[in-house]
Amino acid sequence: MKISSLGEFPLIDRVARRLPPYRGDVRVGVGDDVAVLQIDDHMYQLATCDIQVEGSHFLRSAITPYQLGRKAAAINISDIAAKGGEPQHLFISLALPLDTDVTWVDGLYDGLREEAERYGADIVGGNMARTDGPIVVDVFLLGQVRQDELLLRSGARPGDLVLVTGWLGDSSAGLALVLNPDIAIGKGQREQLLAAHLTPTPRVREARVIAERKQATAMLDLSDGLSSDIGHICDESSVGVRLWADRLPVSAAARHVADSIGQANWALALKGGEDYELCFTAPRGVAQDLAAAVEEATGTGVTPVGEILPEEEGRWVQLPDGREIPLRPEGWDHFRTGGKETEP
Amino acid sequence: MKISSLGEFPLIDRVARRLPPYRGDVRVGVGDDVAVLQIDDHMYQLATCDIQVEGSHFLRSAITPYQLGRKAAAINISDIAAKGGEPQHLFISLALPLDTDVTWVDGLYDGLREEAERYGADIVGGNMARTDGPIVVDVFLLGQVRQDELLLRSGARPGDLVLVTGWLGDSSAGLALVLNPDIAIGKGQREQLLAAHLTPTPRVREARVIAERKQATAMLDLSDGLSSDIGHICDESSVGVRLWADRLPVSAAARHVADSIGQANWALALKGGEDYELCFTAPRGVAQDLAAAVEEATGTGVTPVGEILPEEEGRWVQLPDGREIPLRPEGWDHFRTGGKETEP
Repeated sequence: MKISSLGEFPLIDRVARRLPPYRGDVRVGVGDDVAVLQIDDHMYQLATCDIQVEGSHFLRSAITPYQLGRKAAAINISDIAAKGGEPQHLFISLALPLDTDVTWVDGLYDGLREEAERYGADIVGGNMARTDGPIVVDVFLLGQVRQDELLLRSGARPGDLVLVTGWLGDSSAGLALVLNPDIAIGKGQREQLLAAHLTPTPRVREARVIAERKQATAMLDLSDGLSSDIGHICDESSVGVRLWADRLPVSAAARHVADSIGQANWALALKGGEDYELCFTAPRGVAQDLAAAVEEATGTGVTPVGEILPEEEGRWVQLPDGREIPLRPEGWDHFRTGGKETEP
Repeated sequence: MKISSLGEFPLIDRVARRLPPYRGDVRVGVGDDVAVLQIDDHMYQLATCDIQVEGSHFLRSAITPYQLGRKAAAINISDIAAKGGEPQHLFISLALPLDTDVTWVDGLYDGLREEAERYGADIVGGNMARTDGPIVVDVFLLGQVRQDELLLRSGARPGDLVLVTGWLGDSSAGLALVLNPDIAIGKGQREQLLAAHLTPTPRVREARVIAERKQATAMLDLSDGLSSDIGHICDESSVGVRLWADRLPVSAAARHVADSIGQANWALALKGGEDYELCFTAPRGVAQDLAAAVEEATGTGVTPVGEILPEEEGRWVQLPDGREIPLRPEGWDHFRTGGKETEP
């Protein structure tokens, strides 16, 4: 069987089942975006990696090396943030064609360094090799979190609300603009959406506010798209969910692009990947306070977009007209929807 | 300027110069094989990564996925060992073509797991992405070492001896057999050399004996070849070196292959990469005891192959006939000698 027939997540499940039980210092291992390792009595070390392949994740013609460096750092920083943690040490593995210009590598490092510095992390290692194929940028990031502030995908309970930071669908709309530069849109809105796609902002400060208040029950960052990522919370918390399509926060700019390409606003927000917004759950009674605290401390909006159900009630999307449809993971699967970046 | 004109190590120097100063917890950063991070008052965390690209580092027709998994783990474990440390947590990033067979991925993980388990490490994370190009396997490995047992590339002093474990050139001879299967050689010798190339043995136990005795002054593992790697010790210890060509330990099997391909034995040992043997320095008075301790504890031979000189005396190879020639780094440079694996 080819990996394209199996799909990314079943393949990860399959390899995870082949591994022996962990030793005692591994709190979370294969299957999550972030490994959680006990380093002493009150801190966990967090470790994550994300591989970016030219042609699958980026096109050299559509992103500058500086932007790619920022993005490669940001998406890893976002993973650390979503556990409630802070990034510390960053490593970069590069596979480069021999005709790569040295200034391209300079630009990549400038972007990596700038994004890492912004969130308090140092670039401390890496390695480089030649390739006869596409450029590969693999970032590995270490961070840490206080044990009593760790947030996992497990922990959501029926009755909790599902909340997200910022806008959903901006990155996906930005990708549409990259691939179809002829879509008519104002300069400011174009820049907003391109920035969301090319240089996403990891929600480190927002996540720290959420973690410090110890009221959220589960959290992750939205990398593959809400419709896919919420499934990880459902799987690992053993719960169901109802998402409210008409409550998904979609920016005016993304609405404009969704209209231009004939997609419903809510569908763009639900399916679009790479927003790197936080998605978290919290008991109904504290959710509003928590949202207000994040907004006050950071200026970032927080929106309730659904509710956690008992597992047996299933996973649903309530459409704007009130009908409910089954929630299907329609976000990114590297081996089944691979090529999305270049074949919209 | 293209990276192929600049070369791997000048490119690493160049990006390192673009980075800001590290915070206080970074003992060793970019430029070494391993980052050394202070985690508490008596331990350092060690972190290393190594990217393997199909066509540059391996050929799918010449190595099984199980062997590749073992090798990808082993070369990172070797880096941790060379600092005196022990491996703990391993992560794997994979870029895979969509037509990769699932059993290929199974085999890779089996090899990674077996090698990691053998040295006490757990596979705790990773990620997978599609590629339209060659397979990429990037392993990231965390380990730790007691602060008073850390060995670095710096620390060698004039008068120290240079010692190596095991045989030099076996891996290079094994590569010659992969590329020229028609070379006539006995079955046992062929297996020895192919194993050295396809599934090298990281010298974890040997390195621990050396580290615990606290007599060595510098250490690294031989990945690019002695002629290149000893230069890192000279650079970072500000010393010169004289290597004794007729003392380089070359196995009977490697001698046979060297003769078959018309290469001097000492040249094969000096230039051949991927042996993953330890190279360390120690004061002349303790070197013999240290070598005996390693041999007694592990059964692995240790051979003095040269002496450290004052920096101003330079870097030399004393040939078997007594003449001295300047030592040139003739080992692996990913961007200048790239393609060696496929074009001998």
